[in-house]
Amino acid sequence: MPHLILEHSANLSAKADLTALCHVLKTAVLETGLFETGAVRVRAISCETYAIADELPDNAFLDMSFRIGVGRSDDEKKRAGKTIFAAAQRHLEPLFDTPHFALSLEIREIDPVLSWKKNAMHARLREPASKG
Amino acid sequence: MPHLILEHSANLSAKADLTALCHVLKTAVLETGLFETGAVRVRAISCETYAIADELPDNAFLDMSFRIGVGRSDDEKKRAGKTIFAAAQRHLEPLFDTPHFALSLEIREIDPVLSWKKNAMHARLREPASKG
Amino acid sequence: MPHLILEHSANLSAKADLTALCHVLKTAVLETGLFETGAVRVRAISCETYAIADELPDNAFLDMSFRIGVGRSDDEKKRAGKTIFAAAQRHLEPLFDTPHFALSLEIREIDPVLSWKKNAMHARLREPASKG
Repeated sequence: MPHLILEHSANLSAKADLTALCHVLKTAVLETGLFETGAVRVRAISCETYAIADELPDNAFLDMSFRIGVGRSDDEKKRAGKTIFAAAQRHLEPLFDTPHFALSLEIREIDPVLSWKKNAMHARLREPASKG
Repeated sequence: MPHLILEHSANLSAKADLTALCHVLKTAVLETGLFETGAVRVRAISCETYAIADELPDNAFLDMSFRIGVGRSDDEKKRAGKTIFAAAQRHLEPLFDTPHFALSLEIREIDPVLSWKKNAMHARLREPASKG
Repeated sequence: MPHLILEHSANLSAKADLTALCHVLKTAVLETGLFETGAVRVRAISCETYAIADELPDNAFLDMSFRIGVGRSDDEKKRAGKTIFAAAQRHLEPLFDTPHFALSLEIREIDPVLSWKKNAMHARLREPASKG
């Protein structure tokens, strides 16, 4: 946690740099100050087969799901969502000049009782308490 | 919103026309009268690696998730689900003659407080109020 | 139901046998005694584009979502989660010797009122009541 999943129509790869977008969004997640570096996993899932709106070939979408652990306040969650959405919007701005693009984001919390995790990156990335 | 996501075993591509299925399901979504054309995003995610039931090579699945905004009644949601499921079932009917296929659908609502969206297709597709 | 979905960074395919993992996890699901053979669908979704933690090329993740029908007790769900997570951890053990891997699992129940299913495998796999 947190997981940021980007589902998108495959044609988006030719319209935007999605590797850069993953980096930009990871940076946005960390800039909120609410999440640890070692925990952030942003990834894109490209969909080759789809039917969007009136099915013009130029139609494209990016749909983001942000799954996070519990423990942030409503205000913090809203702030995180706004920050992520704004970063995506900025990166994809040229697409909004066309009448063919839809962007969306949903935040969903992970049930702490019914989730499990093990992360070998934290030990490397967490600040040592003291080097004495 | 709405998002209709079709996860399927990769072998399904050889057993059914999934591009046509996306179109058929988009049409079914719109036929309910509950959603706007510009908002509908149907897409398929193909899974190359899987283990289904007793793992016979012919085993295949299609698992649909319909994520929608709040605001429809329970009856409307049930009607939408039935319409979509029936359309998928009809399109994939030959597969049910084999003992190898499983179809499923789940509807889930998107939290209105923790979601954001921007859609450049609506301006093009919404009926103008008047053309004078 | 149940659905076990494995989202992973594409680089994981070179670090672990994911076909074997799907089989191992399917076996773990069945070993809980809580699910039917014909219902289990384990599948992996490979993500080619991502940004994980500090974005070292070796960073990798596997994020599992287990979606099940209602009707199991809290204890049964916890037991199922522990069994699945332990099986994944065992299969991927060498990766935890590197400071680059994160594993996670979430269980989520499917709303019985807003879900539909049809499964042609059950007839083949369910024990006949009697053969006379």
